[in-house]
Amino acid sequence: VQIVGATGYGGIGLIEQLLRHPAITVTSLLAKSDTGKLLSDFFPHVRGICDMVVEEVEPQRVGEDADLVVFATPDRVAMQYAPTLLERGIKVIDYAGDFRFSDLDAYNRYAARQPSVGGRPHLCPDLLKQSVYGVPELFREEIRGADLVGNPGCFAITMELALAPALQAHLVERQSLIVDGKTGTSGAGKKLSVATHFSEQAENITPYRVAAHQHGVEAAEVLMRYAGSRVGVTFVPHQTPTVRGILCTCYAQLSKTISGKDLYDVYFEGVRS
Amino acid sequence: VQIVGATGYGGIGLIEQLLRHPAITVTSLLAKSDTGKLLSDFFPHVRGICDMVVEEVEPQRVGEDADLVVFATPDRVAMQYAPTLLERGIKVIDYAGDFRFSDLDAYNRYAARQPSVGGRPHLCPDLLKQSVYGVPELFREEIRGADLVGNPGCFAITMELALAPALQAHLVERQSLIVDGKTGTSGAGKKLSVATHFSEQAENITPYRVAAHQHGVEAAEVLMRYAGSRVGVTFVPHQTPTVRGILCTCYAQLSKTISGKDLYDVYFEGVRS
Amino acid sequence: VQIVGATGYGGIGLIEQLLRHPAITVTSLLAKSDTGKLLSDFFPHVRGICDMVVEEVEPQRVGEDADLVVFATPDRVAMQYAPTLLERGIKVIDYAGDFRFSDLDAYNRYAARQPSVGGRPHLCPDLLKQSVYGVPELFREEIRGADLVGNPGCFAITMELALAPALQAHLVERQSLIVDGKTGTSGAGKKLSVATHFSEQAENITPYRVAAHQHGVEAAEVLMRYAGSRVGVTFVPHQTPTVRGILCTCYAQLSKTISGKDLYDVYFEGVRS
Amino acid sequence: VQIVGATGYGGIGLIEQLLRHPAITVTSLLAKSDTGKLLSDFFPHVRGICDMVVEEVEPQRVGEDADLVVFATPDRVAMQYAPTLLERGIKVIDYAGDFRFSDLDAYNRYAARQPSVGGRPHLCPDLLKQSVYGVPELFREEIRGADLVGNPGCFAITMELALAPALQAHLVERQSLIVDGKTGTSGAGKKLSVATHFSEQAENITPYRVAAHQHGVEAAEVLMRYAGSRVGVTFVPHQTPTVRGILCTCYAQLSKTISGKDLYDVYFEGVRS
Repeated sequence: VQIVGATGYGGIGLIEQLLRHPAITVTSLLAKSDTGKLLSDFFPHVRGICDMVVEEVEPQRVGEDADLVVFATPDRVAMQYAPTLLERGIKVIDYAGDFRFSDLDAYNRYAARQPSVGGRPHLCPDLLKQSVYGVPELFREEIRGADLVGNPGCFAITMELALAPALQAHLVERQSLIVDGKTGTSGAGKKLSVATHFSEQAENITPYRVAAHQHGVEAAEVLMRYAGSRVGVTFVPHQTPTVRGILCTCYAQLSKTISGKDLYDVYFEGVRS
Repeated sequence: VQIVGATGYGGIGLIEQLLRHPAITVTSLLAKSDTGKLLSDFFPHVRGICDMVVEEVEPQRVGEDADLVVFATPDRVAMQYAPTLLERGIKVIDYAGDFRFSDLDAYNRYAARQPSVGGRPHLCPDLLKQSVYGVPELFREEIRGADLVGNPGCFAITMELALAPALQAHLVERQSLIVDGKTGTSGAGKKLSVATHFSEQAENITPYRVAAHQHGVEAAEVLMRYAGSRVGVTFVPHQTPTVRGILCTCYAQLSKTISGKDLYDVYFEGVRS
Repeated sequence: VQIVGATGYGGIGLIEQLLRHPAITVTSLLAKSDTGKLLSDFFPHVRGICDMVVEEVEPQRVGEDADLVVFATPDRVAMQYAPTLLERGIKVIDYAGDFRFSDLDAYNRYAARQPSVGGRPHLCPDLLKQSVYGVPELFREEIRGADLVGNPGCFAITMELALAPALQAHLVERQSLIVDGKTGTSGAGKKLSVATHFSEQAENITPYRVAAHQHGVEAAEVLMRYAGSRVGVTFVPHQTPTVRGILCTCYAQLSKTISGKDLYDVYFEGVRS
Repeated sequence: VQIVGATGYGGIGLIEQLLRHPAITVTSLLAKSDTGKLLSDFFPHVRGICDMVVEEVEPQRVGEDADLVVFATPDRVAMQYAPTLLERGIKVIDYAGDFRFSDLDAYNRYAARQPSVGGRPHLCPDLLKQSVYGVPELFREEIRGADLVGNPGCFAITMELALAPALQAHLVERQSLIVDGKTGTSGAGKKLSVATHFSEQAENITPYRVAAHQHGVEAAEVLMRYAGSRVGVTFVPHQTPTVRGILCTCYAQLSKTISGKDLYDVYFEGVRS
């Protein structure tokens, strides 16, 4: 496996997991910052475990020594490399939003909301059809056979796992979904901002992008498959004084009464199949 | 003014405010713990400002040297003293739930949900008729003339101020109210608990009493006056790693479309009148 | 391995480590609280990984199904069981202070400072001679052959690893040691206290047991072996608004000048041998 | 009073204090960022209390409508304006290090350590003689008559108040001073940095500029006046996960034995005179 974007919080989190996996070898680490240093120089907890040098992202280096390239990069990076890599028979996983959607309309709705995309057009819309959404609890079989996987947004996967079972069982009105999200600061990455400045964030809880966050759009696209038709999600994310983790409190209008036991069954079956 | 319950977080917060008020004199401090000590012995930030001795709560001492007694005590304390105090012409403010409701049915719905009351009967239900709810933004005139004030629950006042204007203007469906509450740990007071143990609460956000918190019942009683008839509030409080402050994110189904400017007017008029 | 005291923070931390070890089997979990429940009922992060039932600590149960018993218990628990267990050929590791010292005088100096011991006499002083201090960086060989290991106090191991190399190389005046310690709240365990109440600890750093903490005594006993004669340690611990981790900033008067490179060598050789 | 640097944490903290003072009028607010906005637009807690417009720092505007100009700005700003202001009879207080020292040698020792000064020469060294150090507990009389005050560094004042009484009473060896400092993140101001990024600072305590922080130099200069000759201060600051406040734990070798009562007297007399 080659990791592009190895020096961010997503990259190091991924590397921690991969290093423990008996069948996976991390072959190279690429990034735009901290290149030329050992990964363990700035993430000392992997000293002695992963002392590889971080290399500059050079186009010809991407995919060179790996069967799989994982992009832990911002939106619109993986789409620059995916067509060539797939042609060369190299599998691709993207942690950003480039391949989370199976059609261009859905991507465009997401792109209109994602500030870092700013509505710019997709570079390889043909690949969307073959891309698979990387939530193993929901799409395990498709992921197994996939060459191109778009991993979910952090808030999006949370609300999808919470709401998909209820929508599939027609327990709730599909237009009534409300999600109140609470996130830690690591979700915003290493990039410095006033919102994640310690003096500002400690002792504060701050709603942002109220009913306008791109992960609400993303979840609505995925949940539609379980509801049978378009769903309405009102999503309000909040930045909280925690580092890791997300909590989504989800509300919906019940469309029929159900016992606690049956509800439990819906959720345990729903999540597992 | 005499303060009963002077050593808790509510008591000291109140004392801080009263000490700055030019027309108010704090005459005595009563409590159940830390009696015999100076208040400034255990709250050093008032040293030199309030070095009064904290006295034991003796029944005959309550009301002795004051025109007004404020109870910063748990539920079911103020109701033991209020009838006698009012007969003696002494005004009463309660920070707990004993006098927040104007009729016994409303109190009983609250009492059924409040764990510390456990559904026990009110000791002086006749006084409920004359008690006034202590939210100055909503009931300023009534409070001015009142002898007996029941101050609101911390979550309750937050959702009342947020939702009363919209309900009064018939902007939202009165059965569709959803409140997602986030509170600091000081709301739970000085009492030690696993939920407010630092090792457990840091880096965690925890929902509790889901759709079963007594402040949801309290707010529903108050909001009914603005909606014209009974309202439905689904209230989910969350404990967060902050000390002070409450944030309630409120959701409701719009019953008509309204421009941003008109909405702004509804809120600024609603809160002020 | 049998764990006594499986439900505390020390116990679960230990279990997390042991579960990953290929050559160790956790055979039973004993405790005084939460008995009769699955460990994963109250530590949900080990669900599916360690769903063993926590059993009551019955004397005859201790050591029943294990080659090694680990006591993650307060002071004065392991000493009640160690003589019998060792006679039966079962090895013992204690996380408290019962077997950290090789002679009774040293133990008594520690016991005089440890509030939970209160100076009460050791129950099996004969065993102190054979006990080994559980810091592998310093006593790896002795630990390998030991039947009875006393694991170090959290602050003690930190200052020992920091100061032993310098003392062994006679770099610093052995009477001039100053340690300024900063600890997270998990060190105080699950026991509720005002000092670890979230509302009190957040935004605060609090020195406690100034120059009187039992881990200062413990470290002084161990460091004496490296200095050749008695050392003087002034230790001031501070409680900080973090959960995990300890930082000790150590100061000492240099007894000779040394280059940065030589200092580095002293530390890397010292720690490794 | 005119405030230069009104939009930083130092500026707003100062404004909060001045607004409560009955004999002081804040006449204008100057700054380099957020100019043209109301102060209350970005510090909403002063809405209705201080709704003044923040103006650009234009040279001719500085001192225009005030008897006193306070510079809550970085090093090397106040020294650009002080000569002209003093000539015009306008008093000056600086929150940075430009006027903390009474002779150029002392300033130069500080300037060599302060990263933002980088050893550049002072612009008006003649004024150092007339400047007064702004610690009222130590220099109240001098401050009363002063036209030019250099307010102390945050860590410096802490260690000065802690150590001046002991040095004046010759209780401690003046070469043996050790200060272990713990600071909140507001001391680093509004400027974004990795060290104050929430994801990095939460759950962490980090020593920095070990024995090389400019406030150690500053305190040594001031403490010399109390010790009678040069003092030695080893100062290690730590960044902690708190916002406000500083704690300095100070250590020194006693030069004579003293009873607790006498020590108490030294400290209460020392601080008060």
